[in-house]
Amino acid sequence: MNIVCLASDPAIDAYLKPLHNSHNLTIYHVQNLSPKEVIEKVADAEVLITGPEVTILRRELLLKLPSLKLLSVLTIGTDWLDLDYCREKGIVVSNIHGATAESVAEHTWAMILNLAKRVNEFDREARLNSAYNFSLYKGKEIYGKTLGVLGLGSIGSQVVRIAKCFNMRILGINKSQKPMLGVELVDKITLLKESDVITICIPLNSKTENYISSEEIELVKHGVIIVNCAREKIVNKMALLEGIKSGKIFGYGVETPIMQVIDQNDEYYKYPNIIVVPHNAFNTEDADAKTYNLVVENIEAFNIGKPQNVV
Amino acid sequence: MNIVCLASDPAIDAYLKPLHNSHNLTIYHVQNLSPKEVIEKVADAEVLITGPEVTILRRELLLKLPSLKLLSVLTIGTDWLDLDYCREKGIVVSNIHGATAESVAEHTWAMILNLAKRVNEFDREARLNSAYNFSLYKGKEIYGKTLGVLGLGSIGSQVVRIAKCFNMRILGINKSQKPMLGVELVDKITLLKESDVITICIPLNSKTENYISSEEIELVKHGVIIVNCAREKIVNKMALLEGIKSGKIFGYGVETPIMQVIDQNDEYYKYPNIIVVPHNAFNTEDADAKTYNLVVENIEAFNIGKPQNVV
Repeated sequence: MNIVCLASDPAIDAYLKPLHNSHNLTIYHVQNLSPKEVIEKVADAEVLITGPEVTILRRELLLKLPSLKLLSVLTIGTDWLDLDYCREKGIVVSNIHGATAESVAEHTWAMILNLAKRVNEFDREARLNSAYNFSLYKGKEIYGKTLGVLGLGSIGSQVVRIAKCFNMRILGINKSQKPMLGVELVDKITLLKESDVITICIPLNSKTENYISSEEIELVKHGVIIVNCAREKIVNKMALLEGIKSGKIFGYGVETPIMQVIDQNDEYYKYPNIIVVPHNAFNTEDADAKTYNLVVENIEAFNIGKPQNVV
Repeated sequence: MNIVCLASDPAIDAYLKPLHNSHNLTIYHVQNLSPKEVIEKVADAEVLITGPEVTILRRELLLKLPSLKLLSVLTIGTDWLDLDYCREKGIVVSNIHGATAESVAEHTWAMILNLAKRVNEFDREARLNSAYNFSLYKGKEIYGKTLGVLGLGSIGSQVVRIAKCFNMRILGINKSQKPMLGVELVDKITLLKESDVITICIPLNSKTENYISSEEIELVKHGVIIVNCAREKIVNKMALLEGIKSGKIFGYGVETPIMQVIDQNDEYYKYPNIIVVPHNAFNTEDADAKTYNLVVENIEAFNIGKPQNVV
């Protein structure tokens, strides 16, 4: 097949090597391309490997790629491409489902432990004010506490795996209601009322925007830790900040939107017990390796007529 | 028995309540007392509950406490009291062995995950410079990597327990050579050469000062993460900083000495991938509860002639 890869990361080359054996592969290291630049490079491709940092795949652009049969994307989310057009035209879209799950789950735990043990806060204070008065930085143990996991998909299930070695009681909400070993499937109200730590592992959509709003903050335990490595808007920011101000929420960890510069005057930063990371949970060497290997697998699976990870 | 407690934390009162039933207990909430002030308060006590934030128990002071039979200390280390004198006079010293182990182990993991996923670094950068360029903050996964644990005592063994849920290969050095499930006991050179993450869980003494010096840093893997929640001086600071400068060490987490103000010009702070926490790993509500409950147990055990946790 005629394959074109548009990606910014030079590390991808080594992983895509196997494709050279039986395909015609061209790799461009690029980002922020105009539609015209994309069309020039991809005009004859049957397979396009790319991600949103290169271009947004609108209908007008896709119309100009008549040979395209497979879109192998470097993301899990596909809100940056015209999926309807692909479906109309029979273009298969394969994503990298699961490749970043472990990295995001470990990031979630980095946030939980950091907030519980107040590591960022104390490290920051030490750099600014030579803090040493530990009576001001009393933390919490996680061992034996109750964890509530909103969403038991590929990320949520790895978050659960890690929780087990802290001997936690684990409550979960699973859209599919599929049981999971060691997890009590409960309703939303029970999860909110009984969890010492709540992690959010659900996608953002019209049903999940403001899924945690003032009504939900009312229900949570005093001293709860909340970590949101999913999408910021799943938690209502004003309700969250109210919970932080009142002291009801012990700490909050959040990722802000991808590729978006953070306003340093953002209200999050008024509170020492909020950790803000600009979309980095997925971002490890290991997840890259899994992502790029999966791209090769996805393409070979399509080539033998058994497409996988189809969106 | 006549029991006096000198402690700064008012939370201790509730936990010591059971002692009131069969003993004469007086509690003072104090810190930084002069020897004279201590003697006034403790003169007739048979049991003294205290810690180094109240006073250093030198021989001259202990000489003035002739009724003392049991010293129930709120620490594990006893370098702040004259143990030789206590032994000469038959004063039993009971410590709180194990009460803070889980908190320190969780702190160790908070450090490991934060360094691996670069959470502190990215959060700090976001607050100062609105960082969002995630290509500059590529992290590592922990899953399946090799952990080296220097010291498999009460803290090291909890660090190992947590490592298991990351499906790690675990190498350990155990002074006693006692086997531990899931841990390969190895020599120091093997541990240094093969570990992706090294954690230090040994006490500081004349044999362990500079236990990690330039010779050891020579041996470690490129990209290693080192976490030292034991004592700062176990790692030679200059050798460590050389390893950070050269990029050989991916990240370092360290606790500085207790009750000591940190110099903001400390060279540690020149490097974004070093986390410095001023002695806080032990410091949780949960560890307090375990500590104070253990104090009660230690005293009752002594009272029935079966002293426990004797140093």
